[in-house]
Amino acid sequence: MQDFLLPMRIIGVDPGTIRTGYGIIETDGKSVHPVGFGLIRLNNLEVIPERLEVIYEKLAAAIDQFKPECMAIETAFYGKNVQSALKIGLARGAAMLVGRHRGLVISEYAPREIKKAVTGNGAASKEQVSGMVISLLSLRHDSIRFDETDALAAAICHAFRNQSFTSKNKSWKTFIEQNPERIVR
Amino acid sequence: MQDFLLPMRIIGVDPGTIRTGYGIIETDGKSVHPVGFGLIRLNNLEVIPERLEVIYEKLAAAIDQFKPECMAIETAFYGKNVQSALKIGLARGAAMLVGRHRGLVISEYAPREIKKAVTGNGAASKEQVSGMVISLLSLRHDSIRFDETDALAAAICHAFRNQSFTSKNKSWKTFIEQNPERIVR
Repeated sequence: MQDFLLPMRIIGVDPGTIRTGYGIIETDGKSVHPVGFGLIRLNNLEVIPERLEVIYEKLAAAIDQFKPECMAIETAFYGKNVQSALKIGLARGAAMLVGRHRGLVISEYAPREIKKAVTGNGAASKEQVSGMVISLLSLRHDSIRFDETDALAAAICHAFRNQSFTSKNKSWKTFIEQNPERIVR
Repeated sequence: MQDFLLPMRIIGVDPGTIRTGYGIIETDGKSVHPVGFGLIRLNNLEVIPERLEVIYEKLAAAIDQFKPECMAIETAFYGKNVQSALKIGLARGAAMLVGRHRGLVISEYAPREIKKAVTGNGAASKEQVSGMVISLLSLRHDSIRFDETDALAAAICHAFRNQSFTSKNKSWKTFIEQNPERIVR
């Protein structure tokens, strides 16, 4: 029996009707590497249907360019604002549809789950998640925005949940405990 | 100058992740006629992305069959439940996307606006809206469901707002006052 795992590409998406971030990573089951990421700005578009179409088109272009097999996306919404939830739903619907239309396996993760997978702490701040994503993927700090690190965090969460990481490290928390120098404070 | 208006077809959509209703009407600016309607049941599908894909496919099929030029859809959400708003958003996003992809003009109406246009009362009950839709389109009572009458109501609202109806009748309320026999009590 082989331990070898084919490299897998995952696109993480952080959807919104003002800005939608996305990021593609590659994993061989041992480590994660950045492939590409981007930010779709939508605030200059007047109507929502047009924004959704642009989300769809830009994500389709990224999928066609980088050819991920899976999509990872946040599932829940913990805010209290009903109108915000509605808008997140609209953008998330567009992202999920393009994933389905391109034949990707779509996995949903709760925000807490993503934070915990990436930083070891389910209540980590946006800055902590971003710092850990930058560290894990060896990115330049000044070249990436929160919408992109949030998207990459979802992709990393999917990689950690679905590959052999857990066989070596009981949990990401254990890994962090064993590798304290990896934590960006 | 001609008063003649080309017949216009409008698809109204009442999107949801459990059930999505749709209805197509035709209007010549003087009256509204039913063209087709249907209910997309989604509760047997396990994951949300699959439900969104089915909404997209079934609405695309209805648009290809009945060839409407416009889509009318509810815009707001007046409930208090954040999770419901998120789900409505997902389904609405799928409906808007298929509208954009098929080149339809998409108009959004608040629930209150739709109720007012159809029944003359912005606070009308689901039953009152349904009764008025059935009456206006001369439909059989037992052949249609609330998700379908709600979708048709959005289409009727769009017809009344965009054609010569208002030139003859200052408002739908005025029309109802002048035609009390049209009200289904």
